[in-house]
Amino acid sequence: MACGEFELIARYFNRVTSSRRDVEKGIGDDCALLNVPEKRTLAISTDTLVEGVHFLRDIHPADLGYKALAVNLSDLAAMGADPAWLTLALTLPDIDEAWIAAFSDSLFESLDYYDMQLIGGDTTRGPRSITLGIHGLIPAGKALKRSGARPGDWIFVTGTLGDSAAGLALLQHHVRIDDPAVHEALIKRHLRPMPRILQGQALRNLASAAIDISDGLIADLGHILQASGCGARLNLDAMPLSSTLRDHFTPEQSLRWALSGGEDYELCFTVPEINRGALDVALGHLGVPYTCVGQMTSESEGLVLLQQGDAVKLNLKGFDHFDS
Amino acid sequence: MACGEFELIARYFNRVTSSRRDVEKGIGDDCALLNVPEKRTLAISTDTLVEGVHFLRDIHPADLGYKALAVNLSDLAAMGADPAWLTLALTLPDIDEAWIAAFSDSLFESLDYYDMQLIGGDTTRGPRSITLGIHGLIPAGKALKRSGARPGDWIFVTGTLGDSAAGLALLQHHVRIDDPAVHEALIKRHLRPMPRILQGQALRNLASAAIDISDGLIADLGHILQASGCGARLNLDAMPLSSTLRDHFTPEQSLRWALSGGEDYELCFTVPEINRGALDVALGHLGVPYTCVGQMTSESEGLVLLQQGDAVKLNLKGFDHFDS
Repeated sequence: MACGEFELIARYFNRVTSSRRDVEKGIGDDCALLNVPEKRTLAISTDTLVEGVHFLRDIHPADLGYKALAVNLSDLAAMGADPAWLTLALTLPDIDEAWIAAFSDSLFESLDYYDMQLIGGDTTRGPRSITLGIHGLIPAGKALKRSGARPGDWIFVTGTLGDSAAGLALLQHHVRIDDPAVHEALIKRHLRPMPRILQGQALRNLASAAIDISDGLIADLGHILQASGCGARLNLDAMPLSSTLRDHFTPEQSLRWALSGGEDYELCFTVPEINRGALDVALGHLGVPYTCVGQMTSESEGLVLLQQGDAVKLNLKGFDHFDS
Repeated sequence: MACGEFELIARYFNRVTSSRRDVEKGIGDDCALLNVPEKRTLAISTDTLVEGVHFLRDIHPADLGYKALAVNLSDLAAMGADPAWLTLALTLPDIDEAWIAAFSDSLFESLDYYDMQLIGGDTTRGPRSITLGIHGLIPAGKALKRSGARPGDWIFVTGTLGDSAAGLALLQHHVRIDDPAVHEALIKRHLRPMPRILQGQALRNLASAAIDISDGLIADLGHILQASGCGARLNLDAMPLSSTLRDHFTPEQSLRWALSGGEDYELCFTVPEINRGALDVALGHLGVPYTCVGQMTSESEGLVLLQQGDAVKLNLKGFDHFDS
């Protein structure tokens, strides 16, 4: 790297808006230097978004900047972490200043909102893709792992499910809705998911396990089952569907999106009976609904889907980058 | 992500060979969980390697696995850090099991060697590229920054410079050498650089500034000058050139590669006069030569290149991904 690239990075990504006390050295050396506060565990996750695979070629750069961070924040939320630092590896086919300006403006707006700091990165030429490395902090011993669920624990999800998948189907012209306001609202659910950071933090002392729903409830709950060595009964009648979904699509289509559409970035978490009463205090004031959708069982029962009390089978699968 | 991709990751990347005590949770949850020891500063760096830009299309996957890690380790070395954890974001056009096996075998061999642990990642489909996030630990206050050099400090480099650039020129058929052993040796310098981790650690209490040479000595020393607010005199007659380079290429060609070829992954560091005597004790037993190539001056002098005592000008530039 030399002049041109450094100038590019300096101009658009080297703007330190929030200077966190735990950042000893941010952008501008061989490594960033960070001081983790005492009695805090560090949570690290990384995600890659590739053009044509994870985002559509014509996505607005502001939406991409927002979503790339939101997707990674969602991983922190699922652990109950406080967002802290970000690294950004950006691969671009060319220098398009308007694109970079819109992307970075949007990214920094979110970074400010979450009091995060961009601490490093790499800008390279190539097919457009984005890899974020996200770092959060959790009080020691309080992380929400996938492995803590036990038979009898109640299964909850935040928000409503399936709207993001409906929004994607609209963007891809697989379905259509005549009302432009409804059309826009669903697309926004796909492009601008709200990572459930506050909910994750509030669940630190209550939930036995948690995961964020990126691949669809069935696939992601499956990871909790596997990690915890449990089965589960999932009550399909209880799925939280938005009124938008109910009003404009068939119950079958809505349910399919809710169970396997993916990219909801809501939290799926399990709560022991003894903590169920405390949930209202912890989550009630945060303005996002949460719904009990089932109960953990023993491993031998596997995953059972119930509709009006009867076990049903659905041919559903999550999103797989190589099998799809 | 669902079955196929998870199986792929599980089979090749989920082999925990070294289980570090500071890793509370590695691969397999929404985030990895790490506990930074007391009085340690965390060093973080990220680098992307794109096919056709940073590595040749026909590179052997074992060489790529080695070099991707070595390049990132070199950033840790330049800070004086102990290697600790790695995240791997791997984008592949398809599932080629032989490729993945060779790549991951090579990567894990290096991880073992440095007692590092792979703590997470993301495997996606797309044009081949690799983004590594590397994490190291440094005794608090001992990091080697670019900004600590002062006028009068001596400028050193480890190893020999320019061999990697000669190796790349051979791989690209821009030059040729008839002796197959020499040919192979130079190509190895390009494909298998040795990150100077031990040297970086040994310099923690001696060097005033350090950087690793990825873009060529001129470009990277320039970063120290800028960050430290200094100028420098660089003695071109002192450049450490390997006997291979001297024997097979003209002095002009060799010097050009040494100054601006890049990808040497040697360290360039500055040492105050008072610490110069201690260098032999610190570096002498590590088996890699180190050479004094100049001295820091005041900022107003800028960077001066000296040949046989006279200031000379060379038309040289480092590697720039967008200007090239």
